[in-house]
Amino acid sequence: MTLTTAQIEWIAVDWGTSHLRAWAMAGGRPRCAAQSDRGMGKLTPAGFEPALLELITDWHDGPVTAIACGMVGSRQGWVEAPYKRVPCPVLPGGLVRAPTRSPDLTVLVIPGVAQDDPADVMRGEETQIMGFLALNPGWEGVLCLPGSHTKWVHVSAGEIVSFQTFMTGELFAAIGGHTVLRHSVAASGWDGAAFATALTDTMARPERIAARLFSLRAEALLKALPPVAARARLSGLLIGAELAAARPYWLGQQIAVIGDGTVAALYVDALAVLGVAASAADGEAVTLAGLSAAWATVKG
Amino acid sequence: MTLTTAQIEWIAVDWGTSHLRAWAMAGGRPRCAAQSDRGMGKLTPAGFEPALLELITDWHDGPVTAIACGMVGSRQGWVEAPYKRVPCPVLPGGLVRAPTRSPDLTVLVIPGVAQDDPADVMRGEETQIMGFLALNPGWEGVLCLPGSHTKWVHVSAGEIVSFQTFMTGELFAAIGGHTVLRHSVAASGWDGAAFATALTDTMARPERIAARLFSLRAEALLKALPPVAARARLSGLLIGAELAAARPYWLGQQIAVIGDGTVAALYVDALAVLGVAASAADGEAVTLAGLSAAWATVKG
Repeated sequence: MTLTTAQIEWIAVDWGTSHLRAWAMAGGRPRCAAQSDRGMGKLTPAGFEPALLELITDWHDGPVTAIACGMVGSRQGWVEAPYKRVPCPVLPGGLVRAPTRSPDLTVLVIPGVAQDDPADVMRGEETQIMGFLALNPGWEGVLCLPGSHTKWVHVSAGEIVSFQTFMTGELFAAIGGHTVLRHSVAASGWDGAAFATALTDTMARPERIAARLFSLRAEALLKALPPVAARARLSGLLIGAELAAARPYWLGQQIAVIGDGTVAALYVDALAVLGVAASAADGEAVTLAGLSAAWATVKG
Repeated sequence: MTLTTAQIEWIAVDWGTSHLRAWAMAGGRPRCAAQSDRGMGKLTPAGFEPALLELITDWHDGPVTAIACGMVGSRQGWVEAPYKRVPCPVLPGGLVRAPTRSPDLTVLVIPGVAQDDPADVMRGEETQIMGFLALNPGWEGVLCLPGSHTKWVHVSAGEIVSFQTFMTGELFAAIGGHTVLRHSVAASGWDGAAFATALTDTMARPERIAARLFSLRAEALLKALPPVAARARLSGLLIGAELAAARPYWLGQQIAVIGDGTVAALYVDALAVLGVAASAADGEAVTLAGLSAAWATVKG
């Protein structure tokens, strides 16, 4: 869709390791959306501007500002936006301008957030946290942001107090795709009962996870374990191990899970198995709300 | 080296998923050894005989018998040698003859061992256990066989009583090679202190392993964690999780570790950190002793 600069106010950009998504924004809402697979992980420094222009060229005919979050601000990204240290306000400022050849394009990158002890980092999730707080003013509690690198984040008095990352999503992909379990685990499908059983078994005896993984292979060979049940059990084992380790975050706290529908529902269900009530928030909506909050600080 | 049938008695074969090794045997000792990368995982059923002949053609000029162990006896192997169920004698018999086109070649495959509850399987390790008992008559205790799929095996009164498999080696490769940690973990090198600290931390709080993995990435970014230290810590985390889950196997038991020098020493060291004395046995020596014990039952 072709737009003019008069029709849009700014461009919102979510730029992760494996994806790039952009929205033409007007009146606080997206008018157009576009995406590509030109994530940070596939680009050299000179490749960022063309990758963005490819998506947004039709959206402006004059000067325009883009607000970007995610791995685009990492050391291997377009421009390094140095981490803010916790505890820090969820809207910390400190946007960094990326170098551009196009005189019409201004790109401002939101910095990530780091924690010194235990060492931890996030890039992109801080924007979702910002957006969640913008949509839920005064909210306090713990946010869970599932994904390749799931984050548990303690938010209080408008600040990110502490957080912890779990490689659950990436472990699921690596174990299901690059070990002997690839022969036994389906690529899709779900078995809710198998998930819940694996989850509660792992929560009860988390130290046994290393033993339980191979049982998926052995039961496939000896007991014809269905691949879909094996997939749900692998997920239950890994999320169970995460929840066991994240107990200090979720125990006795108000919890909200931020993510796309399927994965957020999975975590809400898993927490329900533990007797913990959690609400779900749409990942794209909070990303746009966070980018909008950053835009509001710079639009002058 | 060219041999005649008069010079050798039989051929020993260790045929795993990724490798094939053969020895020309005479007087209970190997006279020649050969290997290739034509493991079970790379072969169709018709490919096994040519792969073996490629290695052994020069070793015989008349009828010869090969005794084989490992994944060659799996359903996807040359011929399926159905599992024996625990508890079973370490020398259970039941060798299965593989179909051959060459009239001079007889190939007998040693069956694997299975356990119904908890479900578990081994193929190849049963031969090493057989060999260890042949070299250490009357030995009782727990054998640890580290590898891609590490086995802990309770042996008593000449029987395999129970066992449990841990995917530690394969997890190390999948996590180090197929997650974000590939950027932070060296391909080789060692840091003994980092290994020992990660091991004891994980033993003390095994449920935290899911959180500690990402700390390797975060410390690399924030604290310039050396890649060699990250590699040793990843190994310590995974072996620590294994040892935490295997505690019923090693606690208060006589332990022997079977494997090649480096990995066996790693487990002996790890057990020493826990105050458990373990001896090490050479993997190739016990494999040959096990194949020899099987040969002794069929040579007539």
